Amino acid sequence: MELHSVKVCFTPALYPYEDKHDIHSTVVIDVFRATTSMIAAIENGAEKIIPTISLQDARSLKNRDYLLAGEQDGQKLDFADFGNSPLDFSPGRVNGKTIVFFTTNGTKAIEMAKHNKTLLLAAFTNIEAISGYLSTQGGNVLLFCAGWKNNFSLEDTLCAGAIIEKLVEYETHRINNDAAIATYNLWLGVKSSLKSVLFESEHAKRLMKLGFSNDIDHCLQLNSSGIIPAYNDGGFIKINNVDSVL
Amino acid sequence: MELHSVKVCFTPALYPYEDKHDIHSTVVIDVFRATTSMIAAIENGAEKIIPTISLQDARSLKNRDYLLAGEQDGQKLDFADFGNSPLDFSPGRVNGKTIVFFTTNGTKAIEMAKHNKTLLLAAFTNIEAISGYLSTQGGNVLLFCAGWKNNFSLEDTLCAGAIIEKLVEYETHRINNDAAIATYNLWLGVKSSLKSVLFESEHAKRLMKLGFSNDIDHCLQLNSSGIIPAYNDGGFIKINNVDSVL
Repeated sequence: MELHSVKVCFTPALYPYEDKHDIHSTVVIDVFRATTSMIAAIENGAEKIIPTISLQDARSLKNRDYLLAGEQDGQKLDFADFGNSPLDFSPGRVNGKTIVFFTTNGTKAIEMAKHNKTLLLAAFTNIEAISGYLSTQGGNVLLFCAGWKNNFSLEDTLCAGAIIEKLVEYETHRINNDAAIATYNLWLGVKSSLKSVLFESEHAKRLMKLGFSNDIDHCLQLNSSGIIPAYNDGGFIKINNVDSVL
Repeated sequence: MELHSVKVCFTPALYPYEDKHDIHSTVVIDVFRATTSMIAAIENGAEKIIPTISLQDARSLKNRDYLLAGEQDGQKLDFADFGNSPLDFSPGRVNGKTIVFFTTNGTKAIEMAKHNKTLLLAAFTNIEAISGYLSTQGGNVLLFCAGWKNNFSLEDTLCAGAIIEKLVEYETHRINNDAAIATYNLWLGVKSSLKSVLFESEHAKRLMKLGFSNDIDHCLQLNSSGIIPAYNDGGFIKINNVDSVL
Protein backbone atom coordinates (compact mmCIF):
# COMPACT_ATOMS: atom_id res chain seq x y z
CA MET A 1 0.00 0.00 0.00
CA GLU A 2 1.38 3.40 -0.90
CA LEU A 3 1.71 5.67 2.11
CA HIS A 4 0.13 9.09 2.23
CA SER A 5 2.36 12.08 2.80
CA VAL A 6 2.63 14.46 5.73
CA LYS A 7 4.10 17.93 5.26
CA VAL A 8 4.66 20.89 7.59
CA CYS A 9 4.24 24.60 6.93
CA PHE A 10 5.97 26.67 9.65
CA THR A 11 4.13 29.99 9.36
CA PRO A 12 1.41 31.77 7.36
CA ALA A 13 4.19 33.65 5.48
CA LEU A 14 5.33 30.33 3.97
CA TYR A 15 1.84 29.03 3.17
CA PRO A 16 1.68 30.61 -0.32
CA TYR A 17 4.78 28.59 -1.30
CA GLU A 18 3.27 25.21 -0.35
CA ASP A 19 2.12 22.88 -3.12
CA LYS A 20 -1.41 22.20 -1.89
CA HIS A 21 -2.97 20.48 -4.87
CA ASP A 22 -2.90 16.95 -3.42
CA ILE A 23 -3.58 17.79 0.25
CA HIS A 24 -6.61 16.06 1.74
CA SER A 25 -6.50 17.32 5.33
CA THR A 26 -5.08 20.61 6.56
CA VAL A 27 -4.51 20.84 10.30
CA VAL A 28 -4.03 24.28 11.87
CA ILE A 29 -1.96 24.32 15.07
CA ASP A 30 -1.79 27.29 17.46
CA VAL A 31 -0.79 25.75 20.79
CA PHE A 32 -0.44 29.11 22.63
CA ARG A 33 -3.45 29.45 22.62
CA ALA A 34 -6.10 29.66 19.90
CA THR A 35 -6.50 26.02 18.91
CA THR A 36 -6.06 24.81 22.51
CA SER A 37 -8.84 27.23 23.52
CA MET A 38 -11.15 26.19 20.68
CA ILE A 39 -10.70 22.52 21.60
CA ALA A 40 -11.43 23.37 25.25
CA ALA A 41 -14.55 25.34 24.32
CA ILE A 42 -15.99 22.50 22.22
CA GLU A 43 -14.98 19.95 24.88
CA ASN A 44 -17.03 21.98 27.35
CA GLY A 45 -20.13 22.08 25.19
CA ALA A 46 -19.77 24.98 22.75
CA GLU A 47 -21.81 24.17 19.66
CA LYS A 48 -19.80 26.08 17.12
CA ILE A 49 -16.67 28.24 16.84
CA ILE A 50 -16.75 30.94 14.18
CA PRO A 51 -13.22 32.23 13.43
CA THR A 52 -12.73 35.69 11.99
CA ILE A 53 -9.79 37.90 11.05
CA SER A 54 -11.95 41.04 10.98
CA LEU A 55 -12.40 43.15 14.10
CA GLN A 56 -15.50 44.65 12.52
CA ASP A 57 -17.01 41.19 11.94
CA ALA A 58 -16.11 40.26 15.52
CA ARG A 59 -18.07 43.26 16.81
CA SER A 60 -21.10 42.74 14.61
CA LEU A 61 -21.30 38.98 15.24
CA LYS A 62 -21.19 39.64 18.98
CA ASN A 63 -24.20 41.89 18.52
CA ARG A 64 -26.03 38.90 16.99
CA ASP A 65 -26.05 37.18 20.38
CA TYR A 66 -22.93 35.16 19.87
CA LEU A 67 -20.24 35.12 22.53
CA LEU A 68 -16.94 36.69 21.50
CA ALA A 69 -13.44 35.47 22.30
CA GLY A 70 -11.12 38.28 21.27
CA GLU A 71 -7.36 38.57 21.76
CA GLN A 72 -4.74 40.86 20.29
CA ASP A 73 -1.02 40.50 21.13
CA GLY A 74 -1.94 38.17 23.99
CA GLN A 75 -4.43 40.56 25.66
CA LYS A 76 -8.25 40.31 25.83
CA LEU A 77 -10.14 42.83 23.68
CA ASP A 78 -12.15 45.17 25.92
CA PHE A 79 -15.49 44.42 24.24
CA ALA A 80 -15.00 40.62 24.23
CA ASP A 81 -16.57 38.05 26.58
CA PHE A 82 -13.38 35.99 26.69
CA GLY A 83 -9.72 36.54 25.90
CA ASN A 84 -7.80 33.58 24.54
CA SER A 85 -7.33 31.65 27.77
CA PRO A 86 -8.42 27.98 27.50
CA LEU A 87 -9.26 28.01 31.21
CA ASP A 88 -12.05 30.56 30.70
CA PHE A 89 -14.22 28.37 28.47
CA SER A 90 -15.95 26.56 31.33
CA PRO A 91 -19.09 24.42 30.73
CA GLY A 92 -21.21 26.96 32.60
CA ARG A 93 -20.19 29.74 30.24
CA VAL A 94 -20.03 27.96 26.88
CA ASN A 95 -22.40 24.99 26.89
CA GLY A 96 -24.73 25.18 23.90
CA LYS A 97 -23.25 28.49 22.73
CA THR A 98 -21.73 29.69 19.47
CA ILE A 99 -18.46 31.55 20.03
CA VAL A 100 -16.80 33.95 17.61
CA PHE A 101 -12.98 33.87 17.79
CA PHE A 102 -10.65 36.69 16.83
CA THR A 103 -6.94 36.04 17.65
CA THR A 104 -3.51 37.30 16.62
CA ASN A 105 -2.27 34.22 14.75
CA GLY A 106 -4.57 31.20 14.81
CA THR A 107 -7.52 32.78 13.01
CA LYS A 108 -5.19 34.13 10.31
CA ALA A 109 -3.94 30.64 9.46
CA ILE A 110 -7.51 29.33 9.53
CA GLU A 111 -8.64 32.05 7.14
CA MET A 112 -5.89 31.11 4.66
CA ALA A 113 -6.84 27.42 4.71
CA LYS A 114 -10.62 27.54 5.09
CA HIS A 115 -11.34 26.62 1.48
CA ASN A 116 -9.21 23.46 1.67
CA LYS A 117 -10.92 20.09 1.45
CA THR A 118 -10.86 19.20 5.14
CA LEU A 119 -9.75 21.68 7.78
CA LEU A 120 -9.09 20.47 11.32
CA LEU A 121 -7.59 21.93 14.49
CA ALA A 122 -4.88 20.44 16.67
CA ALA A 123 -3.00 21.25 19.85
CA PHE A 124 -1.04 19.17 22.37
CA THR A 125 -4.35 18.45 24.11
CA ASN A 126 -5.76 16.37 21.22
CA ILE A 127 -2.70 14.80 19.58
CA GLU A 128 -3.81 11.18 19.88
CA ALA A 129 -7.35 11.94 18.77
CA ILE A 130 -6.32 13.93 15.70
CA SER A 131 -3.51 11.53 14.74
CA GLY A 132 -5.84 8.55 14.98
CA TYR A 133 -8.40 10.32 12.82
CA LEU A 134 -5.85 11.37 10.17
CA SER A 135 -4.45 7.87 10.06
CA THR A 136 -7.87 6.24 9.67
CA GLN A 137 -9.11 8.74 7.08
CA GLY A 138 -5.95 8.52 4.98
CA GLY A 139 -5.09 11.18 2.40
CA ASN A 140 -2.17 13.59 2.37
CA VAL A 141 -1.82 15.86 5.38
CA LEU A 142 -0.51 19.40 5.75
CA LEU A 143 0.27 20.48 9.31
CA PHE A 144 -0.03 24.27 9.26
CA CYS A 145 1.62 26.04 12.21
CA ALA A 146 0.09 29.42 13.03
CA GLY A 147 3.37 30.87 14.34
CA TRP A 148 3.63 34.38 15.80
CA LYS A 149 3.06 37.28 13.39
CA ASN A 150 4.43 35.24 10.49
CA ASN A 151 7.44 34.09 12.48
CA PHE A 152 8.31 30.52 13.38
CA SER A 153 6.92 29.24 16.73
CA LEU A 154 8.60 26.44 18.63
CA GLU A 155 5.45 25.17 20.36
CA ASP A 156 3.39 24.79 17.18
CA THR A 157 6.23 23.00 15.43
CA LEU A 158 6.77 20.58 18.32
CA CYS A 159 3.06 19.78 18.32
CA ALA A 160 3.32 19.04 14.58
CA GLY A 161 6.27 16.77 15.38
CA ALA A 162 4.21 14.83 17.93
CA ILE A 163 1.50 14.26 15.30
CA ILE A 164 4.07 13.13 12.73
CA GLU A 165 5.49 10.64 15.24
CA LYS A 166 2.05 9.06 15.59
CA LEU A 167 1.42 8.94 11.83
CA VAL A 168 4.80 7.26 11.30
CA GLU A 169 4.03 4.77 14.10
CA TYR A 170 0.66 3.95 12.53
CA GLU A 171 2.46 3.33 9.21
CA THR A 172 -0.12 5.24 7.20
CA HIS A 173 1.94 8.32 6.31
CA ARG A 174 5.47 9.10 5.19
CA ILE A 175 7.39 12.33 5.70
CA ASN A 176 7.95 14.13 2.44
CA ASN A 177 9.29 17.60 2.84
CA ASP A 178 12.32 19.11 4.53
CA ALA A 179 10.21 20.96 7.07
CA ALA A 180 8.59 17.66 8.11
CA ILE A 181 11.97 15.89 8.39
CA ALA A 182 13.20 18.73 10.62
CA THR A 183 10.00 18.83 12.67
CA TYR A 184 9.99 15.07 13.30
CA ASN A 185 13.65 14.93 14.30
CA LEU A 186 13.33 18.02 16.49
CA TRP A 187 10.40 16.43 18.32
CA LEU A 188 12.26 13.14 18.84
CA GLY A 189 15.21 15.07 20.26
CA VAL A 190 13.35 17.23 22.79
CA LYS A 191 10.14 15.37 23.68
CA SER A 192 11.60 14.00 26.91
CA SER A 193 12.28 17.56 28.08
CA LEU A 194 9.28 19.21 26.43
CA LYS A 195 8.27 21.53 29.24
CA SER A 196 11.70 22.88 30.00
CA VAL A 197 12.39 23.51 26.29
CA LEU A 198 9.02 25.20 25.75
CA PHE A 199 9.35 27.42 28.79
CA GLU A 200 12.32 28.94 26.94
CA SER A 201 10.18 29.73 23.87
CA GLU A 202 9.39 33.31 22.94
CA HIS A 203 5.64 32.92 23.32
CA ALA A 204 5.80 31.16 26.69
CA LYS A 205 7.94 34.00 28.02
CA ARG A 206 5.43 36.50 26.61
CA LEU A 207 2.51 34.70 28.28
CA MET A 208 4.31 34.41 31.61
CA LYS A 209 5.01 38.15 31.53
CA LEU A 210 1.27 38.74 30.94
CA GLY A 211 0.41 36.48 33.91
CA PHE A 212 -0.83 33.45 31.93
CA SER A 213 1.42 30.72 33.40
CA ASN A 214 -1.61 28.54 34.18
CA ASP A 215 -2.60 28.69 30.52
CA ILE A 216 0.79 27.27 29.54
CA ASP A 217 0.29 24.33 31.91
CA HIS A 218 -3.11 23.63 30.35
CA CYS A 219 -1.75 23.93 26.81
CA LEU A 220 0.94 21.33 27.59
CA GLN A 221 -1.44 18.67 28.97
CA LEU A 222 -0.94 16.07 26.26
CA ASN A 223 -4.03 14.14 25.18
CA SER A 224 -6.38 15.60 27.74
CA SER A 225 -9.13 15.89 25.11
CA GLY A 226 -10.69 13.61 22.51
CA ILE A 227 -12.19 16.53 20.57
CA ILE A 228 -11.38 17.08 16.89
CA PRO A 229 -12.77 20.39 15.63
CA ALA A 230 -13.64 20.30 11.91
CA TYR A 231 -14.58 23.24 9.69
CA ASN A 232 -18.03 23.11 8.17
CA ASP A 233 -20.33 25.88 6.99
CA GLY A 234 -18.34 28.82 8.37
CA GLY A 235 -17.30 27.36 11.70
CA PHE A 236 -15.76 24.51 13.67
CA ILE A 237 -17.87 21.79 15.23
CA LYS A 238 -17.13 18.34 16.68
CA ILE A 239 -15.99 15.99 13.94
CA ASN A 240 -18.56 13.31 14.78
CA ASN A 241 -21.23 15.84 13.85
CA VAL A 242 -19.80 16.45 10.39
CA ASP A 243 -18.59 13.01 9.31
CA SER A 244 -21.16 12.97 6.55
CA VAL A 245 -19.73 16.03 4.82
CA LEU A 246 -16.01 15.28 5.04
CA MET B 1 29.88 39.83 30.45
CA GLU B 2 26.60 39.97 28.59
CA LEU B 3 26.42 37.43 25.80
CA HIS B 4 25.62 38.41 22.24
CA SER B 5 22.62 36.82 20.58
CA VAL B 6 22.36 34.40 17.69
CA LYS B 7 19.15 34.15 15.66
CA VAL B 8 18.12 32.08 12.64
CA CYS B 9 16.00 33.06 9.64
CA PHE B 10 14.85 29.95 7.74
CA THR B 11 14.08 31.42 4.31
CA PRO B 12 14.09 34.71 2.37
CA ALA B 13 10.27 34.77 2.74
CA LEU B 14 10.68 35.18 6.50
CA TYR B 15 13.49 37.74 6.31
CA PRO B 16 11.16 40.79 6.21
CA TYR B 17 9.73 39.72 9.60
CA GLU B 18 13.12 39.63 11.36
CA ASP B 19 14.02 42.41 13.74
CA LYS B 20 17.40 43.37 12.31
CA HIS B 21 18.14 46.63 14.10
CA ASP B 22 20.73 45.19 16.49
CA ILE B 23 22.35 42.62 14.20
CA HIS B 24 26.08 43.03 13.73
CA SER B 25 26.89 40.09 11.45
CA THR B 26 24.56 38.44 8.93
CA VAL B 27 25.70 35.06 7.63
CA VAL B 28 24.10 33.69 4.46
CA ILE B 29 24.07 29.89 4.19
CA ASP B 30 23.31 28.00 0.97
CA VAL B 31 24.96 24.61 1.49
CA PHE B 32 23.65 23.09 -1.80
CA ARG B 33 25.52 24.81 -3.41
CA ALA B 34 26.02 28.56 -3.76
CA THR B 35 27.95 29.41 -0.60
CA THR B 36 29.92 26.14 -0.72
CA SER B 37 30.92 27.01 -4.30
CA MET B 38 31.85 30.61 -3.44
CA ILE B 39 34.04 29.40 -0.57
CA ALA B 40 35.68 26.85 -2.92
CA ALA B 41 36.31 29.49 -5.57
CA ILE B 42 37.98 31.88 -3.11
CA GLU B 43 39.91 28.99 -1.54
CA ASN B 44 41.28 28.24 -5.01
CA GLY B 45 42.41 31.77 -5.67
CA ALA B 46 39.43 33.73 -7.02
CA GLU B 47 39.95 37.39 -6.14
CA LYS B 48 36.35 38.44 -5.90
CA ILE B 49 32.83 37.00 -6.17
CA ILE B 50 30.16 39.39 -7.46
CA PRO B 51 26.66 38.06 -6.69
CA THR B 52 23.70 39.16 -8.80
CA ILE B 53 19.99 38.37 -8.99
CA SER B 54 19.66 39.83 -12.48
CA LEU B 55 20.17 37.63 -15.54
CA GLN B 56 20.75 40.77 -17.55
CA ASP B 57 23.52 41.93 -15.20
CA ALA B 58 25.01 38.42 -15.32
CA ARG B 59 25.24 38.64 -19.12
CA SER B 60 26.64 42.13 -19.24
CA LEU B 61 29.20 41.52 -16.48
CA LYS B 62 30.42 38.43 -18.32
CA ASN B 63 31.03 40.64 -21.33
CA ARG B 64 33.31 42.78 -19.14
CA ASP B 65 35.82 39.91 -18.95
CA TYR B 66 34.56 38.44 -15.70
CA LEU B 67 33.90 34.74 -15.47
CA LEU B 68 30.27 33.79 -14.92
CA ALA B 69 28.87 31.07 -12.64
CA GLY B 70 25.22 30.75 -13.56
CA GLU B 71 22.66 28.25 -12.31
CA GLN B 72 18.89 28.09 -12.49
CA ASP B 73 16.90 25.27 -10.86
CA GLY B 74 20.13 23.30 -10.39
CA GLN B 75 21.23 23.49 -14.05
CA LYS B 76 24.09 25.50 -15.60
CA LEU B 77 23.02 28.47 -17.73
CA ASP B 78 24.08 27.90 -21.34
CA PHE B 79 26.06 31.13 -21.60
CA ALA B 80 27.89 30.66 -18.26
CA ASP B 81 31.48 29.48 -17.70
CA PHE B 82 30.49 27.46 -14.63
CA GLY B 83 27.28 26.07 -13.18
CA ASN B 84 27.02 25.94 -9.40
CA SER B 85 29.23 22.91 -8.79
CA PRO B 86 31.96 23.56 -6.17
CA LEU B 87 34.19 20.99 -7.91
CA ASP B 88 34.43 23.12 -11.05
CA PHE B 89 36.18 26.06 -9.40
CA SER B 90 39.69 24.62 -9.72
CA PRO B 91 42.81 26.75 -9.15
CA GLY B 92 43.67 26.59 -12.83
CA ARG B 93 40.34 28.10 -13.81
CA VAL B 94 39.75 30.66 -11.06
CA ASN B 95 43.10 31.83 -9.67
CA GLY B 96 43.27 35.63 -9.78
CA LYS B 97 39.84 35.94 -11.44
CA THR B 98 36.66 37.79 -10.55
CA ILE B 99 33.58 35.58 -10.83
CA VAL B 100 30.01 36.74 -11.20
CA PHE B 101 27.48 34.43 -9.50
CA PHE B 102 23.82 34.05 -10.42
CA THR B 103 22.00 31.23 -8.56
CA THR B 104 18.43 30.20 -7.69
CA ASN B 105 18.52 30.86 -3.95
CA GLY B 106 21.84 31.96 -2.51
CA THR B 107 22.20 35.18 -4.47
CA LYS B 108 18.62 36.16 -3.57
CA ALA B 109 19.36 35.95 0.16
CA ILE B 110 22.62 37.86 -0.38
CA GLU B 111 20.78 40.61 -2.24
CA MET B 112 18.32 41.02 0.64
CA ALA B 113 21.10 41.32 3.22
CA LYS B 114 23.82 43.17 1.32
CA HIS B 115 23.25 46.49 3.06
CA ASN B 116 23.66 44.96 6.52
CA LYS B 117 26.65 45.94 8.60
CA THR B 118 28.75 42.82 8.04
CA LEU B 119 27.74 40.15 5.54
CA LEU B 120 29.54 36.81 5.55
CA LEU B 121 29.08 33.43 3.86
CA ALA B 122 28.99 30.02 5.51
CA ALA B 123 28.64 26.38 4.53
CA PHE B 124 29.59 23.09 6.20
CA THR B 125 33.05 23.51 4.68
CA ASN B 126 33.96 26.57 6.79
CA ILE B 127 32.00 26.08 10.04
CA GLU B 128 34.96 26.28 12.40
CA ALA B 129 36.49 29.24 10.62
CA ILE B 130 33.28 31.28 10.56
CA SER B 131 32.28 30.34 14.11
CA GLY B 132 35.69 31.30 15.44
CA TYR B 133 35.50 34.63 13.63
CA LEU B 134 31.96 35.42 14.86
CA SER B 135 32.94 34.52 18.38
CA THR B 136 36.06 36.69 18.34
CA GLN B 137 34.35 39.65 16.69
CA GLY B 138 31.37 39.57 19.03
CA GLY B 139 28.11 41.34 18.17
CA ASN B 140 24.70 39.84 17.50
CA VAL B 141 24.50 37.31 14.69
CA LEU B 142 21.73 36.45 12.24
CA LEU B 143 22.16 33.14 10.41
CA PHE B 144 20.19 33.56 7.19
CA CYS B 145 19.34 30.30 5.41
CA ALA B 146 18.84 30.67 1.66
CA GLY B 147 16.31 27.82 1.44
CA TRP B 148 14.79 26.67 -1.84
CA LYS B 149 12.49 29.12 -3.59
CA ASN B 150 11.40 30.61 -0.28
CA ASN B 151 10.83 27.20 1.27
CA PHE B 152 12.68 25.77 4.26
CA SER B 153 15.84 23.74 3.49
CA LEU B 154 17.12 21.09 5.85
CA GLU B 155 20.79 21.38 4.86
CA ASP B 156 21.03 25.14 5.41
CA THR B 157 19.31 24.87 8.77
CA LEU B 158 21.58 22.06 9.95
CA CYS B 159 24.62 24.13 8.97
CA ALA B 160 23.19 27.00 11.04
CA GLY B 161 22.79 24.53 13.91
CA ALA B 162 26.44 23.51 13.66
CA ILE B 163 27.50 27.18 13.89
CA ILE B 164 25.22 27.77 16.90
CA GLU B 165 26.76 24.77 18.65
CA LYS B 166 30.21 26.34 18.30
CA LEU B 167 29.05 29.78 19.48
CA VAL B 168 27.43 28.20 22.54
CA GLU B 169 30.62 26.21 23.22
CA TYR B 170 32.72 29.37 22.97
CA GLU B 171 30.36 31.03 25.48
CA THR B 172 30.18 34.26 23.50
CA HIS B 173 26.60 34.00 22.22
CA ARG B 174 23.22 32.95 23.54
CA ILE B 175 20.27 31.60 21.55
CA ASN B 176 17.43 34.07 21.52
CA ASN B 177 14.68 33.17 19.11
CA ASP B 178 12.46 30.14 18.61
CA ALA B 179 14.01 29.35 15.24
CA ALA B 180 17.47 29.25 16.84
CA ILE B 181 16.25 26.99 19.68
CA ALA B 182 14.78 24.62 17.10
CA THR B 183 17.85 24.76 14.87
CA TYR B 184 20.27 24.04 17.70
CA ASN B 185 18.24 21.13 19.09
CA LEU B 186 17.68 19.69 15.62
CA TRP B 187 21.42 19.78 14.96
CA LEU B 188 22.24 18.11 18.30
CA GLY B 189 19.73 15.36 17.51
CA VAL B 190 20.92 14.48 14.00
CA LYS B 191 24.59 15.46 13.78
CA SER B 192 25.78 11.90 14.40
CA SER B 193 23.81 10.73 11.34
CA LEU B 194 24.19 13.89 9.26
CA LYS B 195 24.85 12.30 5.89
CA SER B 196 22.02 9.79 6.03
CA VAL B 197 19.55 12.47 7.15
CA LEU B 198 20.67 14.94 4.48
CA PHE B 199 20.54 12.36 1.69
CA GLU B 200 16.78 12.28 2.42
CA SER B 201 16.47 16.06 1.94
CA GLU B 202 14.57 17.46 -1.01
CA HIS B 203 17.56 19.25 -2.49
CA ALA B 204 19.95 16.31 -2.17
CA LYS B 205 17.43 14.16 -4.06
CA ARG B 206 17.10 16.88 -6.69
CA LEU B 207 20.90 17.08 -7.10
CA MET B 208 21.28 13.30 -7.29
CA LYS B 209 18.65 13.16 -10.03
CA LEU B 210 20.63 15.81 -11.95
CA GLY B 211 23.85 13.74 -11.55
CA PHE B 212 25.53 15.90 -8.89
CA SER B 213 26.18 13.27 -6.19
CA ASN B 214 29.87 14.23 -6.02
CA ASP B 215 28.85 17.79 -5.25
CA ILE B 216 26.88 16.60 -2.24
CA ASP B 217 29.94 14.79 -0.89
CA HIS B 218 32.01 17.96 -1.27
CA CYS B 219 29.34 20.12 0.38
CA LEU B 220 29.30 17.80 3.41
CA GLN B 221 33.07 17.86 4.05
CA LEU B 222 33.00 19.68 7.37
CA ASN B 223 35.76 22.23 7.97
CA SER B 224 37.69 21.52 4.80
CA SER B 225 38.26 25.26 4.30
CA GLY B 226 39.49 28.16 6.42
CA ILE B 227 38.03 30.76 4.05
CA ILE B 228 35.51 33.35 5.29
CA PRO B 229 34.04 35.37 2.42
CA ALA B 230 33.04 38.91 3.46
CA TYR B 231 31.05 41.42 1.43
CA ASN B 232 32.86 44.61 0.56
CA ASP B 233 32.33 47.04 -2.32
CA GLY B 234 29.89 44.94 -4.33
CA GLY B 235 31.45 41.53 -3.88
CA PHE B 236 32.91 38.88 -1.58
CA ILE B 237 36.59 38.67 -0.83
CA LYS B 238 38.70 36.87 1.80
CA ILE B 239 38.03 38.35 5.21
CA ASN B 240 41.72 38.96 5.96
CA ASN B 241 41.72 41.39 3.04
CA VAL B 242 38.85 43.45 4.44
CA ASP B 243 39.52 43.47 8.17
CA SER B 244 40.11 47.19 8.07
CA VAL B 245 36.59 47.96 6.82
CA LEU B 246 34.54 45.61 9.01
